[in-house]
Amino acid sequence: MNFKIILNILGWVFNTEATCLLLPLLCAVIYGESVVPFLVAIAACLVAGVPLSAMKAKNKTMYAKEGYVTVALSWIAISLMGMLPFVVSGSIPNVFNAFFETASGFSTTGASILSDVEVLPKSILFWRSFTHWIGGMGVLVFLVALLPLSGGSNMHLIKAESPGPSVSKLVPKVKTTAKLLYGIYIALTLIEVILLLVGGLDMFEALTLSFGTAGTGGFGIKNSGIADYSSYVQNVITVFMIIFGIDFSFYYLIIIKKIKSAIKMEEVRVYLGIILISVLLITINCYNMFPNVADALKHVFFQVASLITTTGYSTTDFNAWPEFSKCILLCLMFSGACAGSTGGGVKVSRLVILFKSIIKEIKILSHPKRTVKTTMNGRIIEHETIRAINVYMAAYFAIFLVSVLILSLDKPDFTTNFTAVLATINNIGPGLSEVGPTGNFGGYSDFSTLVLTFDMLVGRLEIFPMLVLFSPWSWKK
Amino acid sequence: MNFKIILNILGWVFNTEATCLLLPLLCAVIYGESVVPFLVAIAACLVAGVPLSAMKAKNKTMYAKEGYVTVALSWIAISLMGMLPFVVSGSIPNVFNAFFETASGFSTTGASILSDVEVLPKSILFWRSFTHWIGGMGVLVFLVALLPLSGGSNMHLIKAESPGPSVSKLVPKVKTTAKLLYGIYIALTLIEVILLLVGGLDMFEALTLSFGTAGTGGFGIKNSGIADYSSYVQNVITVFMIIFGIDFSFYYLIIIKKIKSAIKMEEVRVYLGIILISVLLITINCYNMFPNVADALKHVFFQVASLITTTGYSTTDFNAWPEFSKCILLCLMFSGACAGSTGGGVKVSRLVILFKSIIKEIKILSHPKRTVKTTMNGRIIEHETIRAINVYMAAYFAIFLVSVLILSLDKPDFTTNFTAVLATINNIGPGLSEVGPTGNFGGYSDFSTLVLTFDMLVGRLEIFPMLVLFSPWSWKK
Repeated sequence: MNFKIILNILGWVFNTEATCLLLPLLCAVIYGESVVPFLVAIAACLVAGVPLSAMKAKNKTMYAKEGYVTVALSWIAISLMGMLPFVVSGSIPNVFNAFFETASGFSTTGASILSDVEVLPKSILFWRSFTHWIGGMGVLVFLVALLPLSGGSNMHLIKAESPGPSVSKLVPKVKTTAKLLYGIYIALTLIEVILLLVGGLDMFEALTLSFGTAGTGGFGIKNSGIADYSSYVQNVITVFMIIFGIDFSFYYLIIIKKIKSAIKMEEVRVYLGIILISVLLITINCYNMFPNVADALKHVFFQVASLITTTGYSTTDFNAWPEFSKCILLCLMFSGACAGSTGGGVKVSRLVILFKSIIKEIKILSHPKRTVKTTMNGRIIEHETIRAINVYMAAYFAIFLVSVLILSLDKPDFTTNFTAVLATINNIGPGLSEVGPTGNFGGYSDFSTLVLTFDMLVGRLEIFPMLVLFSPWSWKK
Repeated sequence: MNFKIILNILGWVFNTEATCLLLPLLCAVIYGESVVPFLVAIAACLVAGVPLSAMKAKNKTMYAKEGYVTVALSWIAISLMGMLPFVVSGSIPNVFNAFFETASGFSTTGASILSDVEVLPKSILFWRSFTHWIGGMGVLVFLVALLPLSGGSNMHLIKAESPGPSVSKLVPKVKTTAKLLYGIYIALTLIEVILLLVGGLDMFEALTLSFGTAGTGGFGIKNSGIADYSSYVQNVITVFMIIFGIDFSFYYLIIIKKIKSAIKMEEVRVYLGIILISVLLITINCYNMFPNVADALKHVFFQVASLITTTGYSTTDFNAWPEFSKCILLCLMFSGACAGSTGGGVKVSRLVILFKSIIKEIKILSHPKRTVKTTMNGRIIEHETIRAINVYMAAYFAIFLVSVLILSLDKPDFTTNFTAVLATINNIGPGLSEVGPTGNFGGYSDFSTLVLTFDMLVGRLEIFPMLVLFSPWSWKK
């Protein structure tokens, strides 16, 4: 294990976080709120970051192992540092809860232990939403775009942090890919901010809601979520949730005018198809709960987009919808958005590949002599990819089961515990029952909160970085 | 598709079922009950069976496809014919319910739509329990042991009907293997019958309870399940449930005095280990609900054995146990027993292999240059086996999700629907909440009942035979 390079990068992560904290600091100055929480956090980041980043690693080689460990450590570290403003300001005095809330922000989960967010200072709410934006595209992707790292390190870091079964490099150079990704990310966020400003929101609201949408996070600044905003604002958010749930390669293809290739992307088609079918089925199932069909469609579209992209915003209490609608929403929570987007979950492409492997098996059983190839976007899916997906699914369900088992020691309600784990490991936010859109995660014990925090980080990093970090084999010489 | 050979074997299946129906007919004669229901069923079986079995298939070649289709069709057919006694006797007038109950019997699920079994004629109860025994080891395995089929057909039929990721042939000859399996099965059943007779049960009780245990089915003859029997009887059943959940190769190895190899079987060790750990955890969690620890241990051991083997007998209402205990029981329901036993579920060996593949992945990520081999019982697991397990798991969860979705249109309770699907697809019997040990499946609509019936057969045949039967590719020339 090359400790020096890991600590060195960790130093840069802290420095980046210190820089990011300048924004909520500015917000505190503007609104005349206490700047102490942010100064403390910035100081802490710099105290750890400056010496570590100044360290010179002679050996710059970085293997996959170091990549995974660096990413896992970085995400734990930024969550620990990032919780300081919540604790110091007294907004969330309990450290387990503050750690949960911060990890929920960075992992773009959006699950909250707070029952009342409107009492918090605006600068704290700003930081809370901003963590979504930082976590959405990833801290290491940002560093790769800026730092002079060697080629190998770049790739291993991006691989460990990016969502999806395989990394789609937009251009051969990883550094340029990272820059392009962040470019698209910033541009789309800005467009949303402008559209929300046009809708009459002030800059604070427009920024925080856009951060929540862009990172597919889901933290809001009102206790009622998105319910009290105008239909225009709700519809803008619906559209942008769907946009941020699409593989960013899609936008790159459009930018370089390969529109046909963009439209042919299988995962994007299936993703949009799932959204349309779900909206249709749920609307048929529950339109009589709304004053008219148009209103039903608006709410259903919003909720479907919110849950498949694992954002977790809500305009209405979907826990009160009929069981069939709730079950479809549960399925959407499982599926998640596209790989290469900011969304969480298992990812549509994994499900498409698993579905194709079932079809392949049936075809082989029907005609043993036929050779069947599984393809995606016209290319044959490599055996390695399928194997990785299968191991991912196995690990996913193992962690899922163990988590539900631990929570069951704390709370005697299966639906609550099951959907709490689902909502955290898939980075969604709200579940059903007690952790539904009108409830919160504050009812769990410190230990359960820690388990759910672990699930959020495991889910955001797609399991393996955390497993590698905590496995004894990684630390043996 | 070689239709003639499929129909020919189907004919023999019907003839076998007619022969099996002689036993409950005898029971009806002994207890002076109506013989009409059984005569009608026997007549129906013979009308279909005699001409089909007399047919001569010139082309005796049978590929995997024909094997799967034959097995899937056979199981649907015996369930359709087997429900006649229930319908004709008026015990279960609704055909959907009768089909459910019969498929529940043959698939060794033990889920029931009846709220009162004590009003049924003894001969009907006998047939109901006897279906467990027939389904436990399998109809086709029985036919393979008797019929003069070609070698290829033998293997394909056994492969499609046997539980587990790979068929373990005890001896090179498939026919001899089938005979050995049935020999062990009959011997163990007889030992249990004798032990129950010693415990004071009459022949009727001893036989029906042994059928339910041997097939890991779970149909009882009392409304209270096994609660009202003596501790001796309950303990005998506990032990035999565990025995029938072990891979039958274990007993073969003991018979041929390879005790060491038997003890070294990894799946059996893990299976027994899971039982012991579960008993320990649940007892700690809920011993204060019982008069003393010994009593708690007895009930917990019984319930753990009953659910991991997917038998589904109960001595107490475990739905009233604490949430943690219930969650462990849910995990046991998922796991199921050993491959090559009469138990259902995902099977311990599949879970062991999946767990090993996770460990392998972490090791590879930690040390990319190392070659890691996954072994089971000292032998390297073939890539084909792992691939088949992964596809099985994917198909399993797909069918699981779709079934829960369909049930949610019928009943607005997630725990009930979720555990109803779990209890049927894993061939357990009772679930939790409304379908818990004191409830039944009678509350579902005809359509939902049909879906759950499909799940039971899909679960017993481990998914692929049913998928091949219903896939369009199998029927294309």
